[in-house]
Amino acid sequence: MSKPLNVTIWNEFWHERNNPAVGAIYPDGIHAVLAEALGRRGFGGVRTATLEQPEHGLSADVLDSTDVLVWWGHMKHGDVSDDIVRRVHEQVLRGMGLVVLHSAHFSKIFKLLMGTACTVNWREDGEKERLWVIAPEHPIAAGLGRYVELPKEEMYGEPFEIPTPDELVFVSWFQGGEVFRSGAVYHRGRGKVFYFRPGHETFPTYHDATIQDIIANGVRYVAPGRRVTEPVSNMMRPPLEPIG
Amino acid sequence: MSKPLNVTIWNEFWHERNNPAVGAIYPDGIHAVLAEALGRRGFGGVRTATLEQPEHGLSADVLDSTDVLVWWGHMKHGDVSDDIVRRVHEQVLRGMGLVVLHSAHFSKIFKLLMGTACTVNWREDGEKERLWVIAPEHPIAAGLGRYVELPKEEMYGEPFEIPTPDELVFVSWFQGGEVFRSGAVYHRGRGKVFYFRPGHETFPTYHDATIQDIIANGVRYVAPGRRVTEPVSNMMRPPLEPIG
Amino acid sequence: MSKPLNVTIWNEFWHERNNPAVGAIYPDGIHAVLAEALGRRGFGGVRTATLEQPEHGLSADVLDSTDVLVWWGHMKHGDVSDDIVRRVHEQVLRGMGLVVLHSAHFSKIFKLLMGTACTVNWREDGEKERLWVIAPEHPIAAGLGRYVELPKEEMYGEPFEIPTPDELVFVSWFQGGEVFRSGAVYHRGRGKVFYFRPGHETFPTYHDATIQDIIANGVRYVAPGRRVTEPVSNMMRPPLEPIG
Amino acid sequence: MSKPLNVTIWNEFWHERNNPAVGAIYPDGIHAVLAEALGRRGFGGVRTATLEQPEHGLSADVLDSTDVLVWWGHMKHGDVSDDIVRRVHEQVLRGMGLVVLHSAHFSKIFKLLMGTACTVNWREDGEKERLWVIAPEHPIAAGLGRYVELPKEEMYGEPFEIPTPDELVFVSWFQGGEVFRSGAVYHRGRGKVFYFRPGHETFPTYHDATIQDIIANGVRYVAPGRRVTEPVSNMMRPPLEPIG
Repeated sequence: MSKPLNVTIWNEFWHERNNPAVGAIYPDGIHAVLAEALGRRGFGGVRTATLEQPEHGLSADVLDSTDVLVWWGHMKHGDVSDDIVRRVHEQVLRGMGLVVLHSAHFSKIFKLLMGTACTVNWREDGEKERLWVIAPEHPIAAGLGRYVELPKEEMYGEPFEIPTPDELVFVSWFQGGEVFRSGAVYHRGRGKVFYFRPGHETFPTYHDATIQDIIANGVRYVAPGRRVTEPVSNMMRPPLEPIG
Repeated sequence: MSKPLNVTIWNEFWHERNNPAVGAIYPDGIHAVLAEALGRRGFGGVRTATLEQPEHGLSADVLDSTDVLVWWGHMKHGDVSDDIVRRVHEQVLRGMGLVVLHSAHFSKIFKLLMGTACTVNWREDGEKERLWVIAPEHPIAAGLGRYVELPKEEMYGEPFEIPTPDELVFVSWFQGGEVFRSGAVYHRGRGKVFYFRPGHETFPTYHDATIQDIIANGVRYVAPGRRVTEPVSNMMRPPLEPIG
Repeated sequence: MSKPLNVTIWNEFWHERNNPAVGAIYPDGIHAVLAEALGRRGFGGVRTATLEQPEHGLSADVLDSTDVLVWWGHMKHGDVSDDIVRRVHEQVLRGMGLVVLHSAHFSKIFKLLMGTACTVNWREDGEKERLWVIAPEHPIAAGLGRYVELPKEEMYGEPFEIPTPDELVFVSWFQGGEVFRSGAVYHRGRGKVFYFRPGHETFPTYHDATIQDIIANGVRYVAPGRRVTEPVSNMMRPPLEPIG
Repeated sequence: MSKPLNVTIWNEFWHERNNPAVGAIYPDGIHAVLAEALGRRGFGGVRTATLEQPEHGLSADVLDSTDVLVWWGHMKHGDVSDDIVRRVHEQVLRGMGLVVLHSAHFSKIFKLLMGTACTVNWREDGEKERLWVIAPEHPIAAGLGRYVELPKEEMYGEPFEIPTPDELVFVSWFQGGEVFRSGAVYHRGRGKVFYFRPGHETFPTYHDATIQDIIANGVRYVAPGRRVTEPVSNMMRPPLEPIG
């Protein structure tokens, strides 16, 4: 990677300040832990942004200079401005990478990109999750063994109401008896989207070095090769061959 | 087909009443021609609906009793109510079939289901289009030869800004030099969506018997096997196996 | 279904005659149980064929008059004639449906159709399997609830070395900790192929009514709409438009 | 790219020595032109191999040290040893990249990887081909405009009897009236396969700088991230969770 990637990590940053149990795990917020993890893995231009900042920290300037946006949200999806969501959406279609984490399966931006309900079955019992690598050759699985194990996580179970993934990387096994498509890549316009399941706020999942590795792999994978500067539009074209 | 399908054909019905050239081709509207064509092919419960009707003719009752909705729009996409679009969207996710025709590639409902810009390159020079059957075994191609030819049509050219189709049935060749993915199927929630390119209002495309056959095939193909009565939601589930 | 389907069930029929434990479960062979199950579900033209018959019971006449072939094999893949495999392959490419059961993931015909190694991880400990319905709208899942449970089965675990399925219907959860893509559909030429995982010979899986329902659904789903009589070949074509 | 890729270009090398018209275009063989083109684009370890060499130039050592194999063949597919084809196949499944050019759509190795007939419609009238970029964001399309034009090429028309491509990059328009999926990527085991249509031996296509760019992009794209040293096999695994 010759040019350093500009990564922006967005977090609704609510649980950490309103639930002491979460605050104990992520005192400076999930975004701070992820930013540090990416920094330790050689990413140079990592910024963070949160819900309560002006424009949720996602001004046009910030997004224009963001190669990959990482998104965590859970309780406050409804508080995210529709205008900002449209702004993020347009940037993804122009090539900006997007990593969607855990409960952000139900964020406005993910639902807008998928076109489906994006619902899951769930259970918050702190059970074992084992993420199986379905596509060992995939760059997002680089460095992993056959599976990744988390001792305690929230369960998400199928059916996950999404379009068929363009690339399926992980499928989770849960102790309580369910399975879930936990790592999925979509191509939307010029951009790539990586959904990655783990990361409930009451568990220290984002402190796990392997989970951090996967997110770093995901950020690299969805980074754009090129970026379109203008939004696409319907365009009239003259004929290339004679007609009539 | 034991139970007759309930098909509703929606048309913005503007060009036919405001452009005499279009009115001459479709005096009662594109929807009337399509309804008659389906009727002749044995569909028993065909209704029509248009933009200027109350709720655009798409009340909750109408949609609840619609198995497949056919959609034609062009200049008046912006006049379609967001609430009605959401209502149609939810029905597709529950299983209602949707056939999206021609310029409805840029309708609110198609863009909402795709999550992408859905733009095309275009040219209105009345040139020859040849739709090649890419998947001869597909039910939508039943009864067709190697290709279908239209003497005069509007051109749509790639890139068509859509997610990769789940099923690609037709690719068009245009006299002026372009190609286009002209027949594509998507699965979204419990519903199926068939996009079919031909049908610019200034050409008599929907009077063509083979085009009518393809639309009839498409309607049959996207008809739901089952229909979900309630919208899906995130659901809490008890464990199936002991935890802890 | 106006015309009755002609279904042929192929079984290597070795374990049942050489392992008393298997013979106790399937005294007349797995094929006999499946034939009876399909017969009870209204399939009229069900035949069986086994390895030791002349041409393995799969003469050109039998295959020409077979709409859907069901295949079970395990220990004797290597004894299946390459010529017969090519014959079956050509029929699939012309439109014959194929249902591939359990250990037939490693059959010559499945490997030939997939082009990959088709290997799995496995364990024969008689553990619980729960097949989750990933695509509730899929015709193969018609009539099922959220999952299907088998009290004792052989485990197959990922990675399953297959191309990405065209349609993924089931993902299995195993008691011992693994997951597996257990129900997958492929389109190959004019034909459809349904791989379905359960059915180790030492367990009474094919006596299970729900498993029988799924196999019946699968047979209906892969049944051809049309059948090509001649094998495809590279064909010279005159131009449709003037050149030069 | 820190480590230089080892690329081997395989050519049946028959037309160039037996047809003077072809020999005039490619006096040292198609492989020589491609090797030089890759060399000029910074590839350091480019070797060539041809049909009449011992083991067709593809010894186990050569393949073990090949990251990406480029394959051109036409009239002599039948002369390629089945053992060598199996050797190449196994290497692809372990991660070796494969670029399949033009008439090699009908090579043993491509048919083995696809599992289908791989037939095309064709015409050798030296007509204009225009390759449309369907996926502008794809690395194989890097540096290209909306389309690539070749003044004279052989025509290949649909249906192309292949599985649905995992990634579709180009669709060709032909002057004589046909279309073709001209650039397609498949994932098979750990390896990636890029099929690229142009390159009939009687036209100077491989001297075209843009075609050379695309082949170079393709070689980079299918280059393995990792390489598996042992062939995969069915493996018995102990349980990860208690059973029974």
